[in-house]
Amino acid sequence: MEQELSEPVVYLNGAIVPAAQAHLPIFDAGIVQGATVAEMTRTFRHRLWRLHDHLDRLFGALRHTRMDIGMSQEELARISEEVAARNAQLIDQDDELGLIQFVTAGENPMYAGRAVRTTPTVCVHTFPLPFERWAKKMETGAHVVTPSIRHVPPQCYDPRMKCRSRMHFFLADQEARLVDPDAISLLLDLQGNIAETSAANFLMVDRGTIISPTTVNTLPGISRAMVIELAAKLGIPFVERDIQVDDVMNAGEALLTSTPYCVMPVTKMNGAAIGGGRPGPMFRRLLTAWSEVVGVDIGRQIEEGARRQGH
Amino acid sequence: MEQELSEPVVYLNGAIVPAAQAHLPIFDAGIVQGATVAEMTRTFRHRLWRLHDHLDRLFGALRHTRMDIGMSQEELARISEEVAARNAQLIDQDDELGLIQFVTAGENPMYAGRAVRTTPTVCVHTFPLPFERWAKKMETGAHVVTPSIRHVPPQCYDPRMKCRSRMHFFLADQEARLVDPDAISLLLDLQGNIAETSAANFLMVDRGTIISPTTVNTLPGISRAMVIELAAKLGIPFVERDIQVDDVMNAGEALLTSTPYCVMPVTKMNGAAIGGGRPGPMFRRLLTAWSEVVGVDIGRQIEEGARRQGH
Amino acid sequence: MEQELSEPVVYLNGAIVPAAQAHLPIFDAGIVQGATVAEMTRTFRHRLWRLHDHLDRLFGALRHTRMDIGMSQEELARISEEVAARNAQLIDQDDELGLIQFVTAGENPMYAGRAVRTTPTVCVHTFPLPFERWAKKMETGAHVVTPSIRHVPPQCYDPRMKCRSRMHFFLADQEARLVDPDAISLLLDLQGNIAETSAANFLMVDRGTIISPTTVNTLPGISRAMVIELAAKLGIPFVERDIQVDDVMNAGEALLTSTPYCVMPVTKMNGAAIGGGRPGPMFRRLLTAWSEVVGVDIGRQIEEGARRQGH
Amino acid sequence: MEQELSEPVVYLNGAIVPAAQAHLPIFDAGIVQGATVAEMTRTFRHRLWRLHDHLDRLFGALRHTRMDIGMSQEELARISEEVAARNAQLIDQDDELGLIQFVTAGENPMYAGRAVRTTPTVCVHTFPLPFERWAKKMETGAHVVTPSIRHVPPQCYDPRMKCRSRMHFFLADQEARLVDPDAISLLLDLQGNIAETSAANFLMVDRGTIISPTTVNTLPGISRAMVIELAAKLGIPFVERDIQVDDVMNAGEALLTSTPYCVMPVTKMNGAAIGGGRPGPMFRRLLTAWSEVVGVDIGRQIEEGARRQGH
Amino acid sequence: MEQELSEPVVYLNGAIVPAAQAHLPIFDAGIVQGATVAEMTRTFRHRLWRLHDHLDRLFGALRHTRMDIGMSQEELARISEEVAARNAQLIDQDDELGLIQFVTAGENPMYAGRAVRTTPTVCVHTFPLPFERWAKKMETGAHVVTPSIRHVPPQCYDPRMKCRSRMHFFLADQEARLVDPDAISLLLDLQGNIAETSAANFLMVDRGTIISPTTVNTLPGISRAMVIELAAKLGIPFVERDIQVDDVMNAGEALLTSTPYCVMPVTKMNGAAIGGGRPGPMFRRLLTAWSEVVGVDIGRQIEEGARRQGH
Amino acid sequence: MEQELSEPVVYLNGAIVPAAQAHLPIFDAGIVQGATVAEMTRTFRHRLWRLHDHLDRLFGALRHTRMDIGMSQEELARISEEVAARNAQLIDQDDELGLIQFVTAGENPMYAGRAVRTTPTVCVHTFPLPFERWAKKMETGAHVVTPSIRHVPPQCYDPRMKCRSRMHFFLADQEARLVDPDAISLLLDLQGNIAETSAANFLMVDRGTIISPTTVNTLPGISRAMVIELAAKLGIPFVERDIQVDDVMNAGEALLTSTPYCVMPVTKMNGAAIGGGRPGPMFRRLLTAWSEVVGVDIGRQIEEGARRQGH
Repeated sequence: MEQELSEPVVYLNGAIVPAAQAHLPIFDAGIVQGATVAEMTRTFRHRLWRLHDHLDRLFGALRHTRMDIGMSQEELARISEEVAARNAQLIDQDDELGLIQFVTAGENPMYAGRAVRTTPTVCVHTFPLPFERWAKKMETGAHVVTPSIRHVPPQCYDPRMKCRSRMHFFLADQEARLVDPDAISLLLDLQGNIAETSAANFLMVDRGTIISPTTVNTLPGISRAMVIELAAKLGIPFVERDIQVDDVMNAGEALLTSTPYCVMPVTKMNGAAIGGGRPGPMFRRLLTAWSEVVGVDIGRQIEEGARRQGH
Repeated sequence: MEQELSEPVVYLNGAIVPAAQAHLPIFDAGIVQGATVAEMTRTFRHRLWRLHDHLDRLFGALRHTRMDIGMSQEELARISEEVAARNAQLIDQDDELGLIQFVTAGENPMYAGRAVRTTPTVCVHTFPLPFERWAKKMETGAHVVTPSIRHVPPQCYDPRMKCRSRMHFFLADQEARLVDPDAISLLLDLQGNIAETSAANFLMVDRGTIISPTTVNTLPGISRAMVIELAAKLGIPFVERDIQVDDVMNAGEALLTSTPYCVMPVTKMNGAAIGGGRPGPMFRRLLTAWSEVVGVDIGRQIEEGARRQGH
Repeated sequence: MEQELSEPVVYLNGAIVPAAQAHLPIFDAGIVQGATVAEMTRTFRHRLWRLHDHLDRLFGALRHTRMDIGMSQEELARISEEVAARNAQLIDQDDELGLIQFVTAGENPMYAGRAVRTTPTVCVHTFPLPFERWAKKMETGAHVVTPSIRHVPPQCYDPRMKCRSRMHFFLADQEARLVDPDAISLLLDLQGNIAETSAANFLMVDRGTIISPTTVNTLPGISRAMVIELAAKLGIPFVERDIQVDDVMNAGEALLTSTPYCVMPVTKMNGAAIGGGRPGPMFRRLLTAWSEVVGVDIGRQIEEGARRQGH
Repeated sequence: MEQELSEPVVYLNGAIVPAAQAHLPIFDAGIVQGATVAEMTRTFRHRLWRLHDHLDRLFGALRHTRMDIGMSQEELARISEEVAARNAQLIDQDDELGLIQFVTAGENPMYAGRAVRTTPTVCVHTFPLPFERWAKKMETGAHVVTPSIRHVPPQCYDPRMKCRSRMHFFLADQEARLVDPDAISLLLDLQGNIAETSAANFLMVDRGTIISPTTVNTLPGISRAMVIELAAKLGIPFVERDIQVDDVMNAGEALLTSTPYCVMPVTKMNGAAIGGGRPGPMFRRLLTAWSEVVGVDIGRQIEEGARRQGH
Repeated sequence: MEQELSEPVVYLNGAIVPAAQAHLPIFDAGIVQGATVAEMTRTFRHRLWRLHDHLDRLFGALRHTRMDIGMSQEELARISEEVAARNAQLIDQDDELGLIQFVTAGENPMYAGRAVRTTPTVCVHTFPLPFERWAKKMETGAHVVTPSIRHVPPQCYDPRMKCRSRMHFFLADQEARLVDPDAISLLLDLQGNIAETSAANFLMVDRGTIISPTTVNTLPGISRAMVIELAAKLGIPFVERDIQVDDVMNAGEALLTSTPYCVMPVTKMNGAAIGGGRPGPMFRRLLTAWSEVVGVDIGRQIEEGARRQGH
Repeated sequence: MEQELSEPVVYLNGAIVPAAQAHLPIFDAGIVQGATVAEMTRTFRHRLWRLHDHLDRLFGALRHTRMDIGMSQEELARISEEVAARNAQLIDQDDELGLIQFVTAGENPMYAGRAVRTTPTVCVHTFPLPFERWAKKMETGAHVVTPSIRHVPPQCYDPRMKCRSRMHFFLADQEARLVDPDAISLLLDLQGNIAETSAANFLMVDRGTIISPTTVNTLPGISRAMVIELAAKLGIPFVERDIQVDDVMNAGEALLTSTPYCVMPVTKMNGAAIGGGRPGPMFRRLLTAWSEVVGVDIGRQIEEGARRQGH
């Protein structure tokens, strides 16, 4: 269809609709209560990467929140792939898609003022990866700032369940931007351990070992898992332990991992240079190895994509 | 207009639209991150009750979250009153409206895949108060259950800022319903102090004194403030202090306060009767005094409304 | 003696007495202050199983509480074996005994109102293992519920010292039974980590690995140690780390280990099925291996014992 | 009966028995789990003092622990008075009785190895107040030591519920006695606030005001309540707030309140003199006022009683 | 003496010495361990203001730290007054002095490598108040920033004891200056309550009431006490309670109190305006009242002093 | 120079000065705020041992505190070696030196009352190791006491950064000495885990394994690192985990490691014998292995040095 070629589609509650028609009524639980779980997958060469790892985690979150979406993981995988395939036709062949699944607790009948669907809202949508957002940081490194806001602890709701009640992330990022408009907040947990940023896992490198916060206070990211996999392959030790600001201040390197850009160097923390203030060898090694696995030069794709998108 | 008579209206981002058209794109920050602040006001005899107390609190939350909605409190009051007035025409004269204002951080350009409005989303909408939800509890009392989930502490995001990142409330209510499908979760804070329910303030009565959790771990509710006001008028002592389960187990009475039903008796906690298991005199005294102030017999309105709505 | 054949004996403060005469004065420190440490061992084929592992732990607790019982570990072992041997004559040859040693801080002279023995009270007694208590759960799995009550932290008194100040367990089990009369409480520690039940260690299984809470917030159980030993033998990885509700909700299996029934499947948590809601292969594998070591088909013994005892 | 005149009686589970026969089977829940709640009242001139205040608190603890003793507060009061009256005949007319009620969760059928009473165990017993224990401290003041052990927080079990799971008190007193064999441990809570001793409330005096820890981390003692009452009568301000070691180190006076001795001066903390190291005027004022109310010179009674008992 | 007229004097360990000779050996405990307590008093019209309030607090800290300086409070007062009187001769008559007493734990014999004085080091010295430091902030208000560093809790060492182990203040101020080189860090305690800055107490104003953090996490400042006194005189309510960032964000005014400038407006927190971003009426009212009491127009003195010192 | 032979030299802010002239003005930040970082190295046979490990840690602390000393690690190493070499000439050939580097935040211009150097103060000095301090403990073992004071947590300032804001150590040691004048305080962290002493790392031995607190709450000591190295060489397992009092009470051995004495047995904790109350085989094994590496019989050097110094 002509329409499909000009506008992306969205899966929403059983139907494939044009993106412009993909919206939620104001009484959806996702809006009313932040009672939403979500995942983001990306494509490499227009194919979804590790879709089932993301769906495993999504279905874990659904179990935790007792939301029954009435379809199997396989069905949601199939829908996701269809949405991705159709929308990939609309982008440059060198661009890539991010794909999001999110599930809310359904519609709130009280706010609706009438009987409404109270089964979960299910949505799958995509967006072209905006490479220009990450290009500069991939080259010179990100600046992380530890805000006074602390990460929500598991006994409130588990940071490992990827949900969208993220007011603390919103506030933390505001604090970080007071220091530097380009800074990203790196939250500490209630004990003062390094946790994660609002959109990425944090890793540090100390004398050849990659060190990660434990999964008690962070999402067990799929990209982080890929780093673990690559590290095993490359013979790089990877350990999990509680880390603090002092560790990072004196680390050789620091990294962020996240679905859209895979791995990004961190070269500054609270205004101070980390590891000499320049992206380090571990970053390059991981990015290269990752690029080989996916058959895409990830760094170059971001750099060139940014230039192209910058038009 | 015919249309107005048959369907409620909603204020959304500068326009008054029919309720059926009030929806948010799936990339609104309210959906993406729960970065939303909100208020709920109700009418008595179709007039908004203490609208400005609610708006004061909303504008406080906007200051805290640094969201600029580009309009004054007076303008939002005027809009709220207009929406309420129009929608009140659609309901029974003995029914009442709940009115909600909510503000999100705007639209997320990355997820939208294009330039979008990043200024806050502002919405005002109403719903008829569903009296049948509260009628039985007003008569026999609510059952509160303390879940294992704890309330989010202020150093993550402040429980006093009425926001919609409420996954912990969602999970806590699921736990409470395991005990009793009608039970309401009463969250403890990280130190084990009684905090609040997902939708109400909690108060207890001990030998003639009303005792409230402090405002460190609870919303300083407008209905709670009304109880303070009535207590002062009636010569009833009202104190704030940290309270625990043992206090409530041995309290003379317990109460919930919330905008739609004003004040509700709690007669059971974790399956055990409180104050003999029946609504107590303080409940009745407060409800009577409140009814006098607003010129509506609140208890009867709920009872009769429930019967009428139950048709 | 005839008497011995008809009634079990108890070792109490230096003497072997008939069970009916085994009691403590109301001013014993065990009653007055819960200042008691204890162990429970069981028999397999009427022989005490790993008695010295239990006694090592008991003597560790005695050191911690500075209670001097005036006898060596070997003497207490000998007494324990004698009590077990005599009482084993009174039970069915297919039944087994549980054997308890407990030590209190002695008698309280103030409450006694006179000079009394203030050296520790030492008691060794047995009971036939009531298989009917566990038979159903061994077959269909136990239901664990996380209560709002938290586990006592080590800086108050150490959960690893097996003592009898267990009001928190008593209260936690009451909460769990509100959800399901057969449910067992699974306590969280003050940080929200899974700790233990009132009578068992908790383990979970994730993709072939057995995962245990650390011994910071749990008793280092002898049965848990046996699982570690069996896992090593069977090539099953066993790791200790902080685990939370989200982990268990998404675990493949969950288990309890405790002296009387060795290992039991957990198939439900907070009302939600774990691992499909049925006992899993790790449970069976461990139970089989354990049965081989002790020369008793533990599962069948419980099943048949329950039938026999149910008469 | 002759027998009654020579030996005190005890109420135990429905019967009045001679003290020598008052014992619990080793499988009583009070011994097995510390699942016991208790009260201690004393006599003045052989009459129980504020019995109903103690029973109110006991019945509060019974509600909290959901133990149903099958009798009313009035019945237990009557029994208590009878036991006290009978046993008072056995003591010197200048001596006094302490009277204890305790309730356990009943007998443990598993440990009993047979069907047993699982309804609560109820016991009422007395002992002559051993004045010689307190005489020296009443004169020169007690020495309190803050141990490394912390008080159990309310989210584990509430310090305000007078229960007998008190291993932390047992361990804390051991630590205190390392500093001074006569020292009493004064526990801090998990936040470092002064809580209470194993057997008394702690108060301090700062420029004419009596300052008490809040009732969040201490038992709301009946003797402490008497101090509040006397303070009101004498025009002495009494405030509750979180206090710390620094406060006490610099306090004008410090006090303990407890049923047997009413109020006792504290003149040393962690080896350092408080308020000049001598009992202060507030102590004397309260003791005098209290003595007037009860018609007994409390200080002299203890002093003379100690001399008499010291024979 | 000529010398005295040209150079200030310092009291150090029993002698009055010229400032240029006032130094500590590198093995003094004040340098080795930060084991130092201190006070700062200021003059008004060259007379020390409330010297004894400061000395009361200093001697409280000496009791807490068990340091015996071998002289009475009166002697130290006399010395302080002498030092102040002599040094006041060296400054402009419109300038004022700050006077510091500090006491360290003495000299460290191990680091000295020989027998040294291990009794406390006692020092009294002065400096002209550098009005130019505060002039701009008195006019436009200070900017406070909440750092990720938390205040040391009382169970480590009490924030109410004015000591010089202040690495957390040093680090916190570094964080604040990342946001704004003129910003002052406002530390939160471990629970997220507002505590204090490295050099001042923090107060906020809400609808005519002055609200202060409790003295659990702050120094009970002498200037803060003066505000309490002035508030009482002016009929302004003053309350202590736990306050959080949300309170301050929505406060009408905020203030700092500290010895050198008495009271200073805070008009910005974390980059956001407080109370409209301008010094408010409570600030002016307190400053005026204070100025009347001391007979110095404090604001003008700072303003003119700054101009004079700016030469 | 004659002078050099009779008096040690000190490096201070760019110059080598005689020790008697090494002092800081009273307005140095090290005195004013405890804003000081430091290291202590020792010699073996008059050569500095692992100087660069110490300097690595010092430069890490400088990065953390953002203090720029204007010289490279190599330069500071060279200076340190020069100071050590010169001062070694003044001691017995069988004695050894401790060498300290410390850096403060510079001079405080406000307290100085004039423009002063605000760049860091840098000092290097030495002292002969006072073997007599450790000789007895090396032979019979140290006594550690857990005080009520807790260790400062990393979110205040990191225990791993060796700084001199150590009021908590000062207070903790005072508490320990109440129990035994020779006792050393062993601080717990806020969760009740064993942390460290004021001057040493703590290790325990359990069935052949050396167990250490994690580096979250302790300095990663250079001597501790040497133990790790020796353990690896000797095939002794070394693990890090949270340990508590109960662990130590029941440990086979316990040890302290610190620069001056390398490794010391701990044979008592809170008055109770550890590991039989005598130095154990692991202590001897480590000391022997260490002695071999450095070519000095460490135990004998301390013993003989003490005898020599005792003259």
